[in-house]
Amino acid sequence: MTRSHHCGQLTPDNIGETVTLNGWVQTRRDLGGVLFIDLRDRSGIVQVVFNPDYSGEALQTADKVRSEYVLAVTGKVVKRDAETVNRNLPTGEIEVQISEIEVLNTAKTPPFFIEDGVEVDESLRLKYRYLDLRRPQMQRTLRLRSQATKIFRDFLDSEGFIDVETPILTKSSPEGARDYLVPSRVHEGEFFALPQSPQIYKQLLMVAGIERYYQVARCFRDEDLRADRQPEFTQVDVETSFMAQDDLLGMMEKLMQRLFKETVGADITLPFQRLTYADAMGKYGSDKPDLRFGLELVEMNDIVTTSGVKVFASVIEKGGEVKCLNAKGCGTWSRKEIDELGPYASRYGAKGLAWIQVKDGEFKGPIVKFFSEEEIAAVKERTGAEEGDLLLFSADNKKVVADVLGALRLKIGRQLGLIDDSVFKFAWVTDFPLLGYDEDQKRYVAEHHPFTRPRDEDLPLFDTDPGAIRAQAYDIVLNGYEVGGGSMRIYKRDVQEKMFSALGFSPEVAYEKFGFLLDAFEYGTPPHGGIAFGLDRLVMLLAGSTNLRETIAFPKTASATDLLMDAPSPVDAIQLEQLHIKLAPKPEKEKKQLV
Amino acid sequence: MTRSHHCGQLTPDNIGETVTLNGWVQTRRDLGGVLFIDLRDRSGIVQVVFNPDYSGEALQTADKVRSEYVLAVTGKVVKRDAETVNRNLPTGEIEVQISEIEVLNTAKTPPFFIEDGVEVDESLRLKYRYLDLRRPQMQRTLRLRSQATKIFRDFLDSEGFIDVETPILTKSSPEGARDYLVPSRVHEGEFFALPQSPQIYKQLLMVAGIERYYQVARCFRDEDLRADRQPEFTQVDVETSFMAQDDLLGMMEKLMQRLFKETVGADITLPFQRLTYADAMGKYGSDKPDLRFGLELVEMNDIVTTSGVKVFASVIEKGGEVKCLNAKGCGTWSRKEIDELGPYASRYGAKGLAWIQVKDGEFKGPIVKFFSEEEIAAVKERTGAEEGDLLLFSADNKKVVADVLGALRLKIGRQLGLIDDSVFKFAWVTDFPLLGYDEDQKRYVAEHHPFTRPRDEDLPLFDTDPGAIRAQAYDIVLNGYEVGGGSMRIYKRDVQEKMFSALGFSPEVAYEKFGFLLDAFEYGTPPHGGIAFGLDRLVMLLAGSTNLRETIAFPKTASATDLLMDAPSPVDAIQLEQLHIKLAPKPEKEKKQLV
Repeated sequence: MTRSHHCGQLTPDNIGETVTLNGWVQTRRDLGGVLFIDLRDRSGIVQVVFNPDYSGEALQTADKVRSEYVLAVTGKVVKRDAETVNRNLPTGEIEVQISEIEVLNTAKTPPFFIEDGVEVDESLRLKYRYLDLRRPQMQRTLRLRSQATKIFRDFLDSEGFIDVETPILTKSSPEGARDYLVPSRVHEGEFFALPQSPQIYKQLLMVAGIERYYQVARCFRDEDLRADRQPEFTQVDVETSFMAQDDLLGMMEKLMQRLFKETVGADITLPFQRLTYADAMGKYGSDKPDLRFGLELVEMNDIVTTSGVKVFASVIEKGGEVKCLNAKGCGTWSRKEIDELGPYASRYGAKGLAWIQVKDGEFKGPIVKFFSEEEIAAVKERTGAEEGDLLLFSADNKKVVADVLGALRLKIGRQLGLIDDSVFKFAWVTDFPLLGYDEDQKRYVAEHHPFTRPRDEDLPLFDTDPGAIRAQAYDIVLNGYEVGGGSMRIYKRDVQEKMFSALGFSPEVAYEKFGFLLDAFEYGTPPHGGIAFGLDRLVMLLAGSTNLRETIAFPKTASATDLLMDAPSPVDAIQLEQLHIKLAPKPEKEKKQLV
Repeated sequence: MTRSHHCGQLTPDNIGETVTLNGWVQTRRDLGGVLFIDLRDRSGIVQVVFNPDYSGEALQTADKVRSEYVLAVTGKVVKRDAETVNRNLPTGEIEVQISEIEVLNTAKTPPFFIEDGVEVDESLRLKYRYLDLRRPQMQRTLRLRSQATKIFRDFLDSEGFIDVETPILTKSSPEGARDYLVPSRVHEGEFFALPQSPQIYKQLLMVAGIERYYQVARCFRDEDLRADRQPEFTQVDVETSFMAQDDLLGMMEKLMQRLFKETVGADITLPFQRLTYADAMGKYGSDKPDLRFGLELVEMNDIVTTSGVKVFASVIEKGGEVKCLNAKGCGTWSRKEIDELGPYASRYGAKGLAWIQVKDGEFKGPIVKFFSEEEIAAVKERTGAEEGDLLLFSADNKKVVADVLGALRLKIGRQLGLIDDSVFKFAWVTDFPLLGYDEDQKRYVAEHHPFTRPRDEDLPLFDTDPGAIRAQAYDIVLNGYEVGGGSMRIYKRDVQEKMFSALGFSPEVAYEKFGFLLDAFEYGTPPHGGIAFGLDRLVMLLAGSTNLRETIAFPKTASATDLLMDAPSPVDAIQLEQLHIKLAPKPEKEKKQLV
């Protein structure tokens, strides 16, 4: 009984045809000796009917089937009676009158219903992932992911990119704290590492003259997990030679446009908005701003520095800043509602949250009395405050102010319904700082990685103010998520040496850490740069989900466990012996904290 | 200076155009103050000319460049003089008169010439892989691999297969001797394993109702390496539900036909030859026979059992066999040439090699005197022996006879020039034995894996002669290489129980080993089966190479070392501590043997 059609594909055009279907029993109803089965395969559901009039022995067999049994059935497609048409089902105008049935397999009762919208504990879903994946929504998401990957590939292939596989068993990186290690059986006491990204290999491919490379690459990071992280994740990894940053960004915009058009039918307008890191932080308090709504932050230092609000003046004196978010229309909130913002802000580091209501034509609130009339006028003009607005002030160092007001902006934007969930709003954030000062290590560290190219005009700053150097680095931001990022890379030895020196590496240390790459760079390295897209997160946004695990067939939990396979797990002593390792004795105080 | 064209794409059609090129200096020749540079990019080579008449300052700059410098040049495409046309170069009819040059980067003298056909030690090539990959042949091979992968994907996509990524961090398999292990930081004393294949996940995807799955999957095997093995390798992994073996094989044949047509223009005739494992072993002494030539093996037991050749009689008495290979035309070989076959045969387990020359109308050789005239006539008829032939006899157990004569068949086929290297000769080998008896473990073991489905008609043999059960398993063979293989899988619980019982597992042990899969199988598992293609090997054959490492951008050596990255390598003590492992003390006698 070879399948002739898929369940979900039958239409009134098939009426009169004899078809053979394969699939799973979704539901089974017995109405006065006539048996109705909703048969499901990956294309959808169709109703098949067993009736003494035409089913013969098949009816007896069918009578024994239960949910999730696997069937092959043959029968005739007929039009349903008008009163039994099911408008909720794409195949609801027809049904199939079965003459033959084969039970291909039986099934125990599943631990949860195989349908969308059922509330099931996620750990149960993950343990029985093979049942969870039968749900129509998971099937759609996996198909969406496959389709999205194919669009990436087709686009990049058409632009002359070559798909090159780079090793998974590779070397631990100089800052290898987050590397997964793999002991070697052959080389005693030595380890491979799983790559956090193919970064070094893709740069070597540019040295190798591949010119345009891509890979849908598995990457690994052994870090404390958050809800939106997985120990292994997939990035679409891209690198080019002889291509300017603007050209690369323009090409990637077209790729995104095609991806969103062909998967979810969304029209993305080009070019994407571009904003510098400084602007993004300044206006939105975030390097991945959600640009679907306004509520921009406003600088206040010049206005409030002379005000009587002591904390403002003192913060400014210490080099900090005061900024304001005009929560449009929230001035009508009750004191209780306003006060609830305080604890929220403190989660992001705020020590307090000053506010002003615009009510009955006046500024109201505890701090108003410290402002002169001129200052009130200036605040009004700067913030565009109108009747019914609520002005929220944060005063602290730059980072805290951005974190606090950035978070409040998102919260209030959501609360006010300013965010249109049907919109995909892309932007490029550019000109990230090249270096950040690490207070613990008392040295500069690379914000992106040590091979990121500085802007040409900022090169002199290596000698005067390294922290002010802007990188030729960019992130692609969608609806408040970073969905990709990359940079142009250093390709000249003198610049690379300046960079290492700024990081506090002696030439010897630099060579010890990055010798093979430095060597490679001496044999004719072309100008190059690239980008990597987070496939899991992009698919999540395409699927309209907020859970990264929904986009992965067999994800791990937040504690990096595979509940289906029960991995990781203990292994045989003999295996460890062959790998020349032993388990370290368990120190008492260092019990597992993250399980 | 943005690239307008690629070097290798310029043709006489471009004459008169001003072009900007990017690339590497292949060669540089100074002829009386005029400078000729062969500029290379990934598309090919073009000659660019610096002449005082039109190059101005660019000539001075160009004078300083050396091999592998990276340049951007702008100039005018002109026709070459008739006498300077280079017929060996696709762009040999034109050259580019340069007016502008920018040296994008300098280069040290490479350790070897960047061109094809240069003899370079492979370890030097692997250490400087980024230079080795610049060679045109390596560029072609990487592009071929990218193209082949895309054809696989496009074909499978068009047949409704869904590309699903399965985990790399997974569980150690029950027979995990060859697993790479990954210690867990979060779960003390526990380990992930890298997958030897996605076998279990793809079967779970069938349970999940995906119906058609594929993945270009990285797989890992920590075993003693041979020349044609890599610790990580890539397979195109395919699984289907509701599809009969013949339909799957037919579909995969079409895939191969398209792959070989679109990459190397080869026409593959369908359907492929199909031969059973028994036939392949019997006629060719191999389960992956090279079918580009004949020289079939012939059974001799019935003829020679009564002959006076003692060793033949004794082998047959012990249940072994005697077979003959007619090396057509080799009867004219000298005694020395014939004798040299002996040591070769002994490498494959032969204790001796009997032979008969057909010379001057007679059988000649040491064993002829033991044959009766009737026996000689029977041998002659059975082997088709003619004047000038050489009959080679092997007598031993079945395996040794197959190994010896199979190897001799290949050696002689090559020596006689019977193998047409331009031919791609595919075949399916089917009906592999399900079980093999392991003398060490004193039990049957699965030849493929424990989920391989037996042929329906052989099911009763579980109770009588398990070793005779044929599996619904198949290999795809090309020119003597196994390029893929797979099987239909068991999907019914009773059959699976018989299988485990045949393997000597109690129900408890079976559940301990394969519990989660057995559980999954109880919830409505569809009939399913699949195949996996060895991508590295297929690309090797497409590229006309015999070295698997040529098809991989960054391969490991035969001792599983990455010479470029210097991996594996020692890691910091702190990293091991975080992973809760220690290095085992080195036992004296167990020094590294494989390095």
